[in-house]
Amino acid sequence: MPFQLDPQLVKDCHLLLQWPQCHILLHRNAIIPWFILVPQTDYADLLEMPADQREAVLNEAASLAKMIQQRWNLKKINVAQLGNVVPQMHLHVIGRSPTDPCWPQPIWGNLPEETLDYSVTEVQEIRASCSLLNPH
Amino acid sequence: MPFQLDPQLVKDCHLLLQWPQCHILLHRNAIIPWFILVPQTDYADLLEMPADQREAVLNEAASLAKMIQQRWNLKKINVAQLGNVVPQMHLHVIGRSPTDPCWPQPIWGNLPEETLDYSVTEVQEIRASCSLLNPH
Repeated sequence: MPFQLDPQLVKDCHLLLQWPQCHILLHRNAIIPWFILVPQTDYADLLEMPADQREAVLNEAASLAKMIQQRWNLKKINVAQLGNVVPQMHLHVIGRSPTDPCWPQPIWGNLPEETLDYSVTEVQEIRASCSLLNPH
Repeated sequence: MPFQLDPQLVKDCHLLLQWPQCHILLHRNAIIPWFILVPQTDYADLLEMPADQREAVLNEAASLAKMIQQRWNLKKINVAQLGNVVPQMHLHVIGRSPTDPCWPQPIWGNLPEETLDYSVTEVQEIRASCSLLNPH
């Protein structure tokens, strides 16, 4: 069966593009630069993956992190692979700043109730920034 | 200056042992099997590390994850590198189960107020389990 993204992730995110290892998703809540990488794998947890595959996934995450740091002019990146709610493996890569509304807490459960979506232009620009990256 | 563990991590955790890349710490709150790996590095974020060093750290995390799965008889592992409060890079490796008190939320901010510490014997046993592992 071809790989299919989890419907909850599709609902929560803008689909940006596909890299060799991962689908790159942008969470719709624009209050925080929050990206989700979905590796095309049946493994449920990052630490279960074979080392070479895990490394390839993390190279893509590292490329994305640099783009986030540049575009949003911030230094701090949070990275996490939880998957307690959505079982399909996905890696959160999140740009953080002392001026963001959840700092210093993790974002889960601490985002403001009001959400702010990206404009169509912003999504296009972010997709273009990602497509310029060479994650390997 | 020799590498020193952040005092907050030392306060929150039992120091178990030192592997080639990381100090292995066990969070005192025994409600959830929550380990913290502190790589001996000046990098603040996992995704900034050189790939080979990052891979060595994650190999240690993966060894630890297997031990957690076996000892606590659970499948799910959460892994995260945040560092918004304690800037010294540290990697959370946490065994999760649908029967734990925070499931399915992440543990941060969702742990019950009452804490349960490990006994001296339990810490010794967990340290012994770790020392038997070969993370590389």
